[in-house]
Amino acid sequence: MNANLVSNDPLQSAPQPSRISLGEGNTPLVRSRNIGPALGLSNLYFKLENLNPTGSYKDRFAAALVSEMVSNRQTRCIATSSGNTGAALAAYCAAAQIKCIIVVVDGAPLPKLKQMQLYGAELLMIDGFGTSAEVTGRVMDHLEKLTRELHLPLPISAYRFCASGMAGVESISHEILDVLEGSAEIFVPAGGGGLTLAVARGVLTKKKQSKVHCIQPEGNDTIASSLRTGVPAKSVGHSTTRISGLQVANVLDGNDTIAACKALRGTGQTVSDETILRWHKELAFREGIFCEPAGAVALAGVEKAILNGEIDPSANIVCLITGSGFKDMATVESGFSLPPVAPAGMDNSFIKLSELLS
Amino acid sequence: MNANLVSNDPLQSAPQPSRISLGEGNTPLVRSRNIGPALGLSNLYFKLENLNPTGSYKDRFAAALVSEMVSNRQTRCIATSSGNTGAALAAYCAAAQIKCIIVVVDGAPLPKLKQMQLYGAELLMIDGFGTSAEVTGRVMDHLEKLTRELHLPLPISAYRFCASGMAGVESISHEILDVLEGSAEIFVPAGGGGLTLAVARGVLTKKKQSKVHCIQPEGNDTIASSLRTGVPAKSVGHSTTRISGLQVANVLDGNDTIAACKALRGTGQTVSDETILRWHKELAFREGIFCEPAGAVALAGVEKAILNGEIDPSANIVCLITGSGFKDMATVESGFSLPPVAPAGMDNSFIKLSELLS
Repeated sequence: MNANLVSNDPLQSAPQPSRISLGEGNTPLVRSRNIGPALGLSNLYFKLENLNPTGSYKDRFAAALVSEMVSNRQTRCIATSSGNTGAALAAYCAAAQIKCIIVVVDGAPLPKLKQMQLYGAELLMIDGFGTSAEVTGRVMDHLEKLTRELHLPLPISAYRFCASGMAGVESISHEILDVLEGSAEIFVPAGGGGLTLAVARGVLTKKKQSKVHCIQPEGNDTIASSLRTGVPAKSVGHSTTRISGLQVANVLDGNDTIAACKALRGTGQTVSDETILRWHKELAFREGIFCEPAGAVALAGVEKAILNGEIDPSANIVCLITGSGFKDMATVESGFSLPPVAPAGMDNSFIKLSELLS
Repeated sequence: MNANLVSNDPLQSAPQPSRISLGEGNTPLVRSRNIGPALGLSNLYFKLENLNPTGSYKDRFAAALVSEMVSNRQTRCIATSSGNTGAALAAYCAAAQIKCIIVVVDGAPLPKLKQMQLYGAELLMIDGFGTSAEVTGRVMDHLEKLTRELHLPLPISAYRFCASGMAGVESISHEILDVLEGSAEIFVPAGGGGLTLAVARGVLTKKKQSKVHCIQPEGNDTIASSLRTGVPAKSVGHSTTRISGLQVANVLDGNDTIAACKALRGTGQTVSDETILRWHKELAFREGIFCEPAGAVALAGVEKAILNGEIDPSANIVCLITGSGFKDMATVESGFSLPPVAPAGMDNSFIKLSELLS
């Protein structure tokens, strides 16, 4: 039970000052009520990683990594982030009272940046970082050199940079396969591929016959098409998707992700930003699930797999909902305008109410 | 396990089309790492109701009530809300495909209203509703008459209006007492008193020797002082607190709340908005917990109880964190400004980074 510290984190049953937990993991797996049946899928599920403590699956990464930092008596943390990793690290560093500095991706949504600052993190913003492969490469080289000199980890949510943190993410698959009877087809959104790789490795350790599929926006297709055609992952030079969190121009865990998905007979799908935003709205309207746009990528990939005739309608289909809708309100707010405030003289209001009811 | 639909909701192990669950409840109970020790409390815990599906404990209310509406084949829902109840009802009505109309409190935070609209709810805003006792009374009278005529429930999160929905909230206490060894002192923020009453009733059904304390902002002291002095709850005419969600000028469940808290030897505390906002920031900076201002009221009440010499430092002290920080970002954003974006020529950025590290 997530309510139970002991099972939420067995280490906490005995005092473990080095173990930092804010209640991450054990997120709900909810069966689709409306979208699944409409798509002809009898067992569509949503894994609600948006309900983690800071609003994304990155809390699993931060819990593992910051606990390790505490064990190593580290007092400083330098990271890069498009938003979710930074918010997670900032929160866990606050709980551990570790100074947290985050180099943020150009164009990260304001709520994500404010959230990092609220937890006490210092932000550094560099023009083109995260969207230009050239700028990103140079910044990363500097950070790798700097953290090596300072004997600090570089807590980027990719196996290439931080395998011990990413290992904490593999529990997503364990939780899914513990709940579902039989195997599953798990659809995972990908930027640099770390999450897809973590889910695949989590499935492999469970040894269940499940597939893991890698879904990317067309504007950041570093892995998905290569996985389909059997060629290596490739940098896209400049990411053109508007989906926050998936703008990762460089190949990070791309080739390991391709290998792991192939081993699990999973494939890749690319989807347009428009399709992603349509499913983002449908999740709220038809399932009551409010996620960030990146959280709708997996579902867009399920639709694409159906169109490609690559899905078994009776299989357990699981979409990873990766982050909270509150993290990117601008995308939401643009679509809505508030009604006028009715005056205290309430007759008009009551008439309006009757109209809404009819 | 929240990851486990079966234990998250036993009914779902067998198909139960009338049971609507979005993964509410079984929220983490996290032990304080920094604030508790600083206050001299050896066992301070935070119950993270902000991690419910729509970001507040009201999801427990909505899950119970909307499931009942589905069983009763209702297709329309009319509610009132300061934000959290409306967001919860809008989400669960979306999952159940029930039309949802919400009369919102004057001055409710924009993100809460946008969230309701995102789930497909229709909003009605009336000047003075929720802040003026006179206007609120007239609107409520009309809604009670209207819903009676239409044979609809009036899903207001108060026992006076909707006891069956509030019964769904009592599980908070069951979860807390299932985890903690021995008894607890549970601090609960109060507007109309419904949450405090639900927590008290949940404790009473567990028959454990635990206390439930009612905490209110000084600007909405309808219950807390009366509980201390032994007089009935009283309307405040016009609520002057700025804490969203606790602006409830009218006495709703106030007197039942006073009776239940007295039966559990709990008392009342009033706290200033300034104190609440200070603890709201401390929760993020020192515990990594990002809640809405109302979520910090219980902790402000703990501090007040210490000042009043009314707390046992070795007891299990539980603060209810009622809602997510994303629901009231304006309160957060005002306190922070973003750093300037560094140009792509990165030398300056790297110098700045070294400065931050030193």
